[in-house]
Amino acid sequence: MTAASGQRMSVVALSGGIGGAKLALGLKRILAPDSLTVIANTADDFEHIGLSVSPDIDTLVYTLANLSNIELGWGRAGETWTFMDAMKLLGGETWFNLGDGDLAMHVQRTYRLNKGDSLTAITGDVCKALNVGARILPMSDQPVRTQLRADEGWLDFQDYFVGRQSEPVIHELRYTGIEAAQAAPDVIDAIRSTDTTAIVICPSNPLISIEPILAIAGIRDAIADASAPAIAISPIIDGNAVKGPTAKMLRELGHEATAATVLGRYEGLLDAYIADPRDMKSLQNTGSRVSMVPADIMMVTLDDRERLARTVMDVAAQLVS
Amino acid sequence: MTAASGQRMSVVALSGGIGGAKLALGLKRILAPDSLTVIANTADDFEHIGLSVSPDIDTLVYTLANLSNIELGWGRAGETWTFMDAMKLLGGETWFNLGDGDLAMHVQRTYRLNKGDSLTAITGDVCKALNVGARILPMSDQPVRTQLRADEGWLDFQDYFVGRQSEPVIHELRYTGIEAAQAAPDVIDAIRSTDTTAIVICPSNPLISIEPILAIAGIRDAIADASAPAIAISPIIDGNAVKGPTAKMLRELGHEATAATVLGRYEGLLDAYIADPRDMKSLQNTGSRVSMVPADIMMVTLDDRERLARTVMDVAAQLVS
Repeated sequence: MTAASGQRMSVVALSGGIGGAKLALGLKRILAPDSLTVIANTADDFEHIGLSVSPDIDTLVYTLANLSNIELGWGRAGETWTFMDAMKLLGGETWFNLGDGDLAMHVQRTYRLNKGDSLTAITGDVCKALNVGARILPMSDQPVRTQLRADEGWLDFQDYFVGRQSEPVIHELRYTGIEAAQAAPDVIDAIRSTDTTAIVICPSNPLISIEPILAIAGIRDAIADASAPAIAISPIIDGNAVKGPTAKMLRELGHEATAATVLGRYEGLLDAYIADPRDMKSLQNTGSRVSMVPADIMMVTLDDRERLARTVMDVAAQLVS
Repeated sequence: MTAASGQRMSVVALSGGIGGAKLALGLKRILAPDSLTVIANTADDFEHIGLSVSPDIDTLVYTLANLSNIELGWGRAGETWTFMDAMKLLGGETWFNLGDGDLAMHVQRTYRLNKGDSLTAITGDVCKALNVGARILPMSDQPVRTQLRADEGWLDFQDYFVGRQSEPVIHELRYTGIEAAQAAPDVIDAIRSTDTTAIVICPSNPLISIEPILAIAGIRDAIADASAPAIAISPIIDGNAVKGPTAKMLRELGHEATAATVLGRYEGLLDAYIADPRDMKSLQNTGSRVSMVPADIMMVTLDDRERLARTVMDVAAQLVS
C-alpha cells in the first residue's frame, strides 16, 4: 500500500494482546511485506512454574502467523492439553492454562533468557521461524510488571486477570520496574524513523496495555516528536469495552468508561482518533484539536480487521498529504 | 509377603531405568504395601532446554504407578507430542523427545529444584501424588553425570545414548561430580536398617546404572555390612544384554560381556547371584563363594516380573533363615 504521495506505507503499532492483535493482522494483510512493526506490551509478562510467559507477544505471534486458536479466542491452533492434565495429577499449579504447543514458546524463551539472550532477539527469531511477516518488538528487554491494588493489597496482573477473573475492585495501578526499564533496541528508532508513515495505537486497554509502553522513558516523547502522524483507535464503544475489563478498571480508578476518557489519556500524542459514530458527539465536546474520525471499529471477522486497517491507513495518508 | 521366620519382607532395590523398573514392579506387586524402597540412579540425569530431566526416576515412577507407555517401551501412557511439533516449528532442539505429559514432570522438578527443594523431596511428592506405592530415593541430591570418552573426546551420557544412539566406540567412563556427591538422606539408613530383609541389585546396566550408585561414598560399604542379604540379577543372558548397550559397552571397555563379568564387578557385596541356567557353568568356574541361582530372568510379561520377584524373595528368605 502506498500513500497518495507514492510513498510506501510503513506502520509502527503499539499493541497489547487480543484486540490489538486483530488490528495488527488487518494492517499486515493490507500493507506491503515487512512494512509493519508492532511494539508489544510486556507488562503482562510473568514467571509461572519457572517459565517466562509473555502473553501479549505470543498473542501477536500466533495471530500474525495464522496460528491462533479461533475457537478459544486465545492460544494456539490445534492445541492439546496433556501437560495440564499431567500437572493436575502431580498436584502442581493449574490456575493458568498452558497448552502443549504453547509450552514450546515458554520453554524456549525461558531457556534462552537464562542463557543471556534478550527478549528482543528471542522474539525476532520466533517471528522468523513462524513466518510472522511483521517485526514484533517487546517494549523493553527489562521486566516491567503491572500490579493492581485491591482491598487485599497489591496483586500481580495475571493473579488478578486470570487467577481472579478481574473480579477484585481495584484502587490503584502501578508498573513495577518501569523506572529501570529502557526502551528495547529499535523501538525509539522505529517510532522516529522518517520511513515510518503512521504510528498506530491499537484498540487495546489503555491502562494495562498501552500506557506501560508509553511510560518507558523516551517512548511518549518519541511519538509526540515523530514525523509520522499518530492515530489511536478507541477500545471503548458507546461506554462499553469490546472485550476484557477495560471499562470496569477505568470506572474503579475514577474515570468514566468512555472513548473520550481514553482520548484524554493520549492527549499530546495524537493526530487522529478513530471511534464509533455514537461517541462522536461527546468526543467533539472535549474541545480536543485531534481529528475525530467516525468509523465502525468493531472487529469480528477478518474483513472487519482489514476494513479498519484501511480506515487507519486512509486517515494516515490524509494527515501526511 | 513374609519370610519363613514370619518377618515381613522389606526390600531395598538398586535400579536404573527400564530393566530395573520391570523387576521393581514385580517386587511391588508381590510385597505388602509400602515394603519397597528403590534407590534410583541419577547419573543419567541431564539439563535439556533448561529442564532437569531424570530419566531413571521417571521410568521407575511411571512403571510403578502403572502410567508407563507399553507401546513405546518408555515414557508415559496416553502421551501426545504437540510440544515437540511446536519446538520443531520454532527451530528449537528436538533430538531428545519430551512428551507433553512427561513435560509436567520436568517442568515441576525444575521449578522446585530452582526454588531450593531437594530431588529427594520432589521425588517423594511425585510418588505420593501418582500413588506409586513404593519409596523412590534418588541416589544423591547432588548432580552426578556419566560421561564416556570416545575417539572425539568426552561425551555426556544422553548425547551418547540418545543423540548418538550408543554408536561411538567408548574407551573410558567417568562419573563427573561423584566425589562431591553424598548419598541422599535415607539411602544409607534404608540399606542398613534391620527392618530390611533383602537388598536387590536389579538387572540394570552395571556401568551406567548400578555402579554410579555404588560409587557414592558409603553406599558400597553399607551394602557389604548390611544385615540383609544382597542379591543381584544378571543383566546379561548367554552373552547378550537383554536391552540397551550393556554388552557393547562392556566389550569396548575391555571386558567379556558375560554374567560372570557382572558378578565380578559386584564382588564383596553379594550373597546370591541369579542368572540364566546357560550361564551357570561359567559362573561356577569363577570360584566365587556367592550362591549361584539359576532362573529364567527374562522379563517380557507382567507374570515374568512377578515370577522373578518371587524367585528373588525366595532366595532372600533362604539366606536369612
